[in-house]
Amino acid sequence: MSNSYRVAILGATGAVGRELLELLESRNFPVSDLKLLASERSAGQRLPFKGEKLLVEPVSDAMFENVDLVLASAGGSTSKTWAPVAVEKGAVVIDNSSAFRMNPDVPLVVPEVNPQAAANHKGIIANPNCTTILMTVAVWPLHQVKPVKRIVAATYQSASGAGAQAMAEVKTQASAILEGKEPTAEVFPYPLAFNLFPHNSPLNDWGYCEEEMKMVNETRKIFDNQQIRITATCVRVPVLRAHSEAINLEFETPFSPNEAREILQKSPGVKLLEDWRKNYFPMPLEATGKDEVLVGRIRQDISHPCGLELWLCGDQIRKGAALNAVQIAELLVEENLLKPKAATYVS
Amino acid sequence: MSNSYRVAILGATGAVGRELLELLESRNFPVSDLKLLASERSAGQRLPFKGEKLLVEPVSDAMFENVDLVLASAGGSTSKTWAPVAVEKGAVVIDNSSAFRMNPDVPLVVPEVNPQAAANHKGIIANPNCTTILMTVAVWPLHQVKPVKRIVAATYQSASGAGAQAMAEVKTQASAILEGKEPTAEVFPYPLAFNLFPHNSPLNDWGYCEEEMKMVNETRKIFDNQQIRITATCVRVPVLRAHSEAINLEFETPFSPNEAREILQKSPGVKLLEDWRKNYFPMPLEATGKDEVLVGRIRQDISHPCGLELWLCGDQIRKGAALNAVQIAELLVEENLLKPKAATYVS
Repeated sequence: MSNSYRVAILGATGAVGRELLELLESRNFPVSDLKLLASERSAGQRLPFKGEKLLVEPVSDAMFENVDLVLASAGGSTSKTWAPVAVEKGAVVIDNSSAFRMNPDVPLVVPEVNPQAAANHKGIIANPNCTTILMTVAVWPLHQVKPVKRIVAATYQSASGAGAQAMAEVKTQASAILEGKEPTAEVFPYPLAFNLFPHNSPLNDWGYCEEEMKMVNETRKIFDNQQIRITATCVRVPVLRAHSEAINLEFETPFSPNEAREILQKSPGVKLLEDWRKNYFPMPLEATGKDEVLVGRIRQDISHPCGLELWLCGDQIRKGAALNAVQIAELLVEENLLKPKAATYVS
Repeated sequence: MSNSYRVAILGATGAVGRELLELLESRNFPVSDLKLLASERSAGQRLPFKGEKLLVEPVSDAMFENVDLVLASAGGSTSKTWAPVAVEKGAVVIDNSSAFRMNPDVPLVVPEVNPQAAANHKGIIANPNCTTILMTVAVWPLHQVKPVKRIVAATYQSASGAGAQAMAEVKTQASAILEGKEPTAEVFPYPLAFNLFPHNSPLNDWGYCEEEMKMVNETRKIFDNQQIRITATCVRVPVLRAHSEAINLEFETPFSPNEAREILQKSPGVKLLEDWRKNYFPMPLEATGKDEVLVGRIRQDISHPCGLELWLCGDQIRKGAALNAVQIAELLVEENLLKPKAATYVS
């Protein structure tokens, strides 16, 4: 018989938490027991799973007893508090926060890119930032054929990156504006509906925001390549849940768009979407709810002989967060890197 | 006595036409007579000017009799038809369409950048594309100090670039989505509300759309520099009337952000907007209705020793179109490059 696992979702009521729940069901992840955990404030809700309505319970030490796998998506400070507890009690934690991503003892994994890194886990595996996941899925297959020297990225990031409340806020703001009223902003520092602004994460001394540095540092860690030069401008746009990215790539030698297209056509996790006659390329409307990173508008960069331009969109909550985490969990199962207590008894 | 001029606005009922009317009044352009012209379909409306309600008349040959200056913003084919007629009858045409921009006999002018080019006009002066105007105003002052080698641009373009109907369509789509209905698209090929897509202008054989090639070719013409290498990704976003641009600049030698800041602080048409502690930078909400191009987030590009990143927003209808045209008209007046019939009689 195949193993099945005792799973806990930490942050179950959030936008990513709900998507994790949906993915465990739809992808038929081998779950023998499922605990939904959240803060005291969010506990008490019931969420659907395989025809049942599961109760969301407040997180506590005791909740991590007899758990094989924790999927955590409740923010950095929550992960810092509870991930070590869960690991101590024998679980493997796949953490969606930024808390452990740059920790050298924690693998940072995109299954299409560096699945082998998962094998070195010591209890925690980090799920990269959404913009990084989407970019690495599209760039890695090209980088395997000809190494990328430099990336200049500009992002178009949806409200979902700041959670379900942010998505609701954008809708409320849009309603207000359409009624001729002044929009108010609480989740974001400025109104986002019919507006946009540079990503509102803390800025470092060089003027890069955290979101941009995640693209730089996480990509280098995932690619296991500290030489690759990356710059990014991250921007929040009034889109609900898919991110877009304009990616300018510089290689050592010329990379023909047709060759790139052929490579990406057969790359895992990528879907080429290019209808040049209809001017039909990836857009958030198409990417929402999809598992793949949609890639298109692959062009020779006319400003650089070794440059290639590409455009991508991906569902920020799915591949940008929940799906990647579940794929890591599936990888752990396949590679027998998740040691279920049940399996120990059986073997 | 100072001269005053007989002015016609061709395309008076459009978004840019109305802004032209407002600017002629608010900037106190010396108008002795004003004709508002539009297609048969749009004629008959009355638009406000200096306390009067002026009738919009259908365009015809006779309408260009006794006109010194035509401000045209009615699309390329209308300009191709009527600009030569107006010039033939003695007027100078400042044309906002793309019809004549790359014509070597037609100066393409951003007054802050290449005012001297206006002197060579043979009756028609072209107003550059909105994205080009905004970028050149910000980049030119830096280029004067250290030549720019290469520009990698990504744009975030508002609906206004496709006219008043497009702005209305985005609002209608947003309403539909908020009510849980399917949005419809007529002006744009795809719904733009809560979505975005690569700019829907025709694509060339290299995969660049017209809008992107305008940034490349027009910038080179305005800078009078065919060596400068430019690539762009132009994207429509659900914003009503201000464009934003992420601009990556590569110079021959390093360009410190502080030096760039000092230069831009005193550059005409530019307003620096940077509050690093508040994460407050240019955004469409701030740029709408403003004359200046707002520039901020000036950073050393960490991926290139001679790279500089900057972020800008500008009102697409104002500096991106109508204001630049009126500034060209003012330049013609100042430099006596507009020969009014009245002045001929006086001198």
